[in-house]
Amino acid sequence: MSKEATPDHPVHRYISARWSPYAFSPRLIPREDLFSIFEAARWAASSFNEQPWRYLVASRDRTEDFEKILSCLLEGNQTWAREVPTLALGCIKTSFTHNGRFNRVAQHDLGLASATLTFEATSRGVYVHQMAGIRPGKAREVFSIPDGFEAVTALALGYRADAGAGAPELRARDEGSRTRRPQSEFVFGAEWGKPGLGST
Amino acid sequence: MSKEATPDHPVHRYISARWSPYAFSPRLIPREDLFSIFEAARWAASSFNEQPWRYLVASRDRTEDFEKILSCLLEGNQTWAREVPTLALGCIKTSFTHNGRFNRVAQHDLGLASATLTFEATSRGVYVHQMAGIRPGKAREVFSIPDGFEAVTALALGYRADAGAGAPELRARDEGSRTRRPQSEFVFGAEWGKPGLGST
Repeated sequence: MSKEATPDHPVHRYISARWSPYAFSPRLIPREDLFSIFEAARWAASSFNEQPWRYLVASRDRTEDFEKILSCLLEGNQTWAREVPTLALGCIKTSFTHNGRFNRVAQHDLGLASATLTFEATSRGVYVHQMAGIRPGKAREVFSIPDGFEAVTALALGYRADAGAGAPELRARDEGSRTRRPQSEFVFGAEWGKPGLGST
Repeated sequence: MSKEATPDHPVHRYISARWSPYAFSPRLIPREDLFSIFEAARWAASSFNEQPWRYLVASRDRTEDFEKILSCLLEGNQTWAREVPTLALGCIKTSFTHNGRFNRVAQHDLGLASATLTFEATSRGVYVHQMAGIRPGKAREVFSIPDGFEAVTALALGYRADAGAGAPELRARDEGSRTRRPQSEFVFGAEWGKPGLGST
């Protein structure tokens, strides 16, 4: 079945085609594509151009590094993420470099960067499955993440499993259509809770 | 001068073309485009599909609503943002709906949504200038934002000012090239601080 979004208003195909698979093909992502994917993150917007995002990245052919990242995921995510071609941890610098003060939007700006890399990935046929289910303390230990930085998310990157390939229980998790609340429930106008752009 | 990014690796043109102007054309954004722009946010990824993002949106032709959003920005942002065609506040729901627990990545997921809408905007010739410089308490008061939700960012949306049009001091702020730290400083591999994808 199709995992295409069913938008109420037209959106770019790289937005409607994006979703978060559990079953991935074992095929590795060429290094040039990974460079372009993280290059996209590089050009995201950030408060004071701080660029608070940092990524720890390992592909499965670097077994030891890959296992290090895998060990930082919650158990439930480890079961499927051990099959993906590339894993990353999304980390932030928690203070501003220009004045040392707390960066209230560091995590938000990591989100901007990760969505931007996801867009570039989608344009290259690469799917990204982001996870909040990680163990930040374990990541700090395994990678000696210094004070002032912290791991926030994990990202699995790769190609979709071929039809019929991959573990059936993973393929089964990828069934079901994508659902979202309508715009009237999150785009407000003059008043909180009241639709902002008129009736759709 | 060109504000195109100067990437070290090729990225999609909607990524290299994105930047955050201060000077905007007064031209309003057609409602159909605004619908598609916020539709893009709708289809972003989020932890547990919580979709914690909420947007308060007003265009300049709705003077009273527009002024309400404007009043929630820090002074320095009000000076230029009063000229933009559409303003929005990016807000979050701070807890999960399915279990009431704190959503550690709500702000991150607002970032995913805002980057996704920015991509759709760019594809339609619309620029987005995001701001962390807002007054969350003022926003709560002006819009009666309920407990459990909070304003995190503001977004200005519109078209670029025509050459020679707009206030010269705003146009001047848009000069200068875009700079970013190299990938070697934010994409790490087996060790924190050591480049992850090899030499560029």
